[in-house]
Amino acid sequence: MRQSNMLIPTLKEVPADAEIKSHQLLVRGGFIRQIASGVYSFLPMGQRVLRKVEAIIREEMDNIGANEMVMPAMQPAELWKETGRWNNFGPELMRLNDRHDREFALGATHEEVITSIIRDAVKSYKRLPLTVYQFQTKFRDEKRPRFGLMRGREFVMKDAYSFHDSFDSLDQVYQKMYQAYENIFRRCGLNFRAVIADSGAMGGKDTHEFMVLSEVGEDTIAYSDSSEYAANIEMAPVTATSTSEQGELKELKEVATPGKRTMQEVADFLEHPLDKGLKALMFKVDGNLVLVVTRGDHEVNDIKLKNLYKAETVELATEEETKAALGAGFGSLGPVGLPDDMKVVADQAVKSAVNVTCGANKDGYHYVNVNPGRDFKVDSYADLRFIQQGDPSPDGKGTIQFARGIEVGHVFKLGSIYAERMGATVLDEQGKAKTMNMGCYGIGVSRTVAAIVEQYHDERGITWPAHLAPFQVHLLALNMKKTEQKQLAEKIYDSLKTAGVEILFDDRAERAGVKFADSDLIGIPLRITVGKRAGEGYVELKQRATGEQTEIHESELLRQLNNLV
Amino acid sequence: MRQSNMLIPTLKEVPADAEIKSHQLLVRGGFIRQIASGVYSFLPMGQRVLRKVEAIIREEMDNIGANEMVMPAMQPAELWKETGRWNNFGPELMRLNDRHDREFALGATHEEVITSIIRDAVKSYKRLPLTVYQFQTKFRDEKRPRFGLMRGREFVMKDAYSFHDSFDSLDQVYQKMYQAYENIFRRCGLNFRAVIADSGAMGGKDTHEFMVLSEVGEDTIAYSDSSEYAANIEMAPVTATSTSEQGELKELKEVATPGKRTMQEVADFLEHPLDKGLKALMFKVDGNLVLVVTRGDHEVNDIKLKNLYKAETVELATEEETKAALGAGFGSLGPVGLPDDMKVVADQAVKSAVNVTCGANKDGYHYVNVNPGRDFKVDSYADLRFIQQGDPSPDGKGTIQFARGIEVGHVFKLGSIYAERMGATVLDEQGKAKTMNMGCYGIGVSRTVAAIVEQYHDERGITWPAHLAPFQVHLLALNMKKTEQKQLAEKIYDSLKTAGVEILFDDRAERAGVKFADSDLIGIPLRITVGKRAGEGYVELKQRATGEQTEIHESELLRQLNNLV
Repeated sequence: MRQSNMLIPTLKEVPADAEIKSHQLLVRGGFIRQIASGVYSFLPMGQRVLRKVEAIIREEMDNIGANEMVMPAMQPAELWKETGRWNNFGPELMRLNDRHDREFALGATHEEVITSIIRDAVKSYKRLPLTVYQFQTKFRDEKRPRFGLMRGREFVMKDAYSFHDSFDSLDQVYQKMYQAYENIFRRCGLNFRAVIADSGAMGGKDTHEFMVLSEVGEDTIAYSDSSEYAANIEMAPVTATSTSEQGELKELKEVATPGKRTMQEVADFLEHPLDKGLKALMFKVDGNLVLVVTRGDHEVNDIKLKNLYKAETVELATEEETKAALGAGFGSLGPVGLPDDMKVVADQAVKSAVNVTCGANKDGYHYVNVNPGRDFKVDSYADLRFIQQGDPSPDGKGTIQFARGIEVGHVFKLGSIYAERMGATVLDEQGKAKTMNMGCYGIGVSRTVAAIVEQYHDERGITWPAHLAPFQVHLLALNMKKTEQKQLAEKIYDSLKTAGVEILFDDRAERAGVKFADSDLIGIPLRITVGKRAGEGYVELKQRATGEQTEIHESELLRQLNNLV
Repeated sequence: MRQSNMLIPTLKEVPADAEIKSHQLLVRGGFIRQIASGVYSFLPMGQRVLRKVEAIIREEMDNIGANEMVMPAMQPAELWKETGRWNNFGPELMRLNDRHDREFALGATHEEVITSIIRDAVKSYKRLPLTVYQFQTKFRDEKRPRFGLMRGREFVMKDAYSFHDSFDSLDQVYQKMYQAYENIFRRCGLNFRAVIADSGAMGGKDTHEFMVLSEVGEDTIAYSDSSEYAANIEMAPVTATSTSEQGELKELKEVATPGKRTMQEVADFLEHPLDKGLKALMFKVDGNLVLVVTRGDHEVNDIKLKNLYKAETVELATEEETKAALGAGFGSLGPVGLPDDMKVVADQAVKSAVNVTCGANKDGYHYVNVNPGRDFKVDSYADLRFIQQGDPSPDGKGTIQFARGIEVGHVFKLGSIYAERMGATVLDEQGKAKTMNMGCYGIGVSRTVAAIVEQYHDERGITWPAHLAPFQVHLLALNMKKTEQKQLAEKIYDSLKTAGVEILFDDRAERAGVKFADSDLIGIPLRITVGKRAGEGYVELKQRATGEQTEIHESELLRQLNNLV
């Protein structure tokens, strides 16, 4: 393509609202433009990258036998009412009424639509398993759209759905899909981890998120420094340490800790390390008060608490509620001397505590030399805390490190919950109706483009991996008014185009400085510069990512490019 | 693909709401499914066809240097208010509010969005002409969605927009686009005509519609039986006939025509042919009364009337209004003896009328032996009627025939109207701001799929043109329980797949009759049937469209297919 007639509106200035690199560079490089908050157009260069990412995804989906289809954005409210999500999805679900005042959702996801199709179309176990996928625009009215393509309100997803007559069959397809996702993100050149994730509200079973490692990621990943283990921080179990502390049990004493409320303040005041204090927090678990005790250097993981009680809701009690129950506010709670009916659970690390400190349930006082068993009872010990950096990896290999991640993909064993609610059954071998099992699998396609830019850029612009770049070669004629430059550039353009090279030709009447800056910004992997030595047939060939450059005669170009591309 | 694990839910019954063949066959063949009125899913087979049509369009768009991009469906109301279409588009424009109560349109078309992008991105005439296109879902809340993909509320369009610094440049790109559209519809195997169309409300200039000829089309095309001339019926000018009738002017007479109101009733009563009567209709042209006179066998074309007066609105007067103005109701109006201030225009054919009949502006009475000039005055004669079958073609070659057409494409010189309203200018060579000219160009992609089926089907199902078919070869194993059939079919499937043939393998445990019927319905061009002679390696090869069939040894298959595909 000739750059003079292609819509590539590069910008020198960083857009005011663009906080992260991918947002800045995709806007500055003329790849995308915002139309409304969280709503973007893909300009021609952005569209070319998007289509390359899509092609990789399509190939991997086809390889595992998934059927491509496409479902509508307009979805009748009735379908969403069948699963209960019309009410539960909240304000993120965009809604509209048609001219006859019928209610519609704009597809935020397509479980309801695909389940309704499969319910009508598939009647026998013989047609299962069946996996379908689509590339489709999704609409989610995010409260705070930001970071450009990272968190938008209208965005491109690849979503896939599988249907099964047994959980085993779901397991198998889940594994295939997992592998396909690994292939996809590897082919996109991304440094990523598949992490164990929370199966959330819809009652699913296994689920993994595919996280691109990046400082701008909104999630924290706990991963092993010596194995493949990685989990969303909420999901990583903490291994019980078998070592128990030794030492003589000293006498329990109450001490005044005036004005010391936080664990750190108390530890400093009493001159002991943070882990020699016990932290006690009052929770309401499905409405019932529970005192949760952890070591002072640990944080309660409320998802683990919720799972322990198989609870629907878990929330912190208010300070008024703790005062009413225990007679003290947040800074002085502890497990010693509690009313008989107070439930107490403790993190497993508390069990081996010796001569530690805790709140005395009296504002401004703490106990020292507290020892579990002797001084307080615990209804049960369990893994109740967030994993920390330095903890042993749950798989027994290495220790845990933290990283930030951008979620680009998600695979999910939904089980039978949607099929049950929507009455999607097949006849089994005995001719009996059986509720289907389902998996769902998503990739944020436009977000993946942003994640690629987060990992492939330098201070001058984007450094696209070759197979994802909008073009392979960027041809610059530094001065189109000089006949020998213009002629040579046109000759090279024609011959490379004819040879099937994806080439962008900067034929604009701009200054050399502008052309170089734009070229670095756009980030096409190979640049051919036609300049002063055009008369002799010599051009410069430069690799965007490494900066490596050579002078080369135009007759050698094609051979050299074939080596590099 | 194996049919056992592909979503192809064929139906024996014709869906109750499916009136036309394409709707029936696409649903019955498992290509599409309705989710809501006018809202469809493309199932895997439909998606495959859609993608092939898209690929043809993309290739032709790229060939003329158009840039692919993609714009969002969610469009802020502000943009539509700039062009005035937020109010003018009416209930077809779907609207919604986001969580902050900001108003959005769901893209029914993208002139506003692209003009806002180009306005910001393109500042110099040097970047023009610029043509962009997209494949995008469009939303239009049709009053009466029907005919399956023909008239939907959510559908796929390819829309293109070109921007220019001169009308000449627009002319050139319009011609290229016109040619590309001809290529596209020809490559889709369609019998179509490019017809001159109405440039409508937005003040555009030239415009052509691409019409697929079909009895189920909603438009009427007037075309020449001896040339390329074709126009939407509203747009075809009528050639003035130079022959003038001869005859002695008889004496004007008033006759009673009790209860005769229509032209036919009066002609029968007075025993003369229909064309010996004059028809007079009262219109309100921008609110002013005008009596429009045509021959009794002609119909007033209100678009021509509107154009004659360069009017904004043209509507028929009510019977009360005609009584108030002329003293008579609809059945007895005529141009004789009118008040002085009554405007009269007549179709050019009226000029040569001799001794004809017209209403006497007195209910139940007509004049006979009426002669223009002698008996009534006409302010102006003009071409005011619809063209008719048998009229001479406007280009002077042959005579006019009518056909029904499905509009699949539209090319339109918009001129500067959008750019003016949205302030989209470029600096010209002298550095002065200049309003851009624009063209817009649309193809109904999903409708094109339906149009193809209208032209390619027989009583048993669809007969896809080979390059648009979802697969090239349909392999049927008649009885999968017979080892030699299963083995041979599997062998053929593997070898053809390996050879790159797009093959669908009906490996289902269904009866032969079901397989044959489904295969005819789906309409894949070539069918290989593995049946009784499988043991000897012989299969049947049948062409779907012609019914031609041969027995062939499996070792000959690939060579034979290469000849046919």
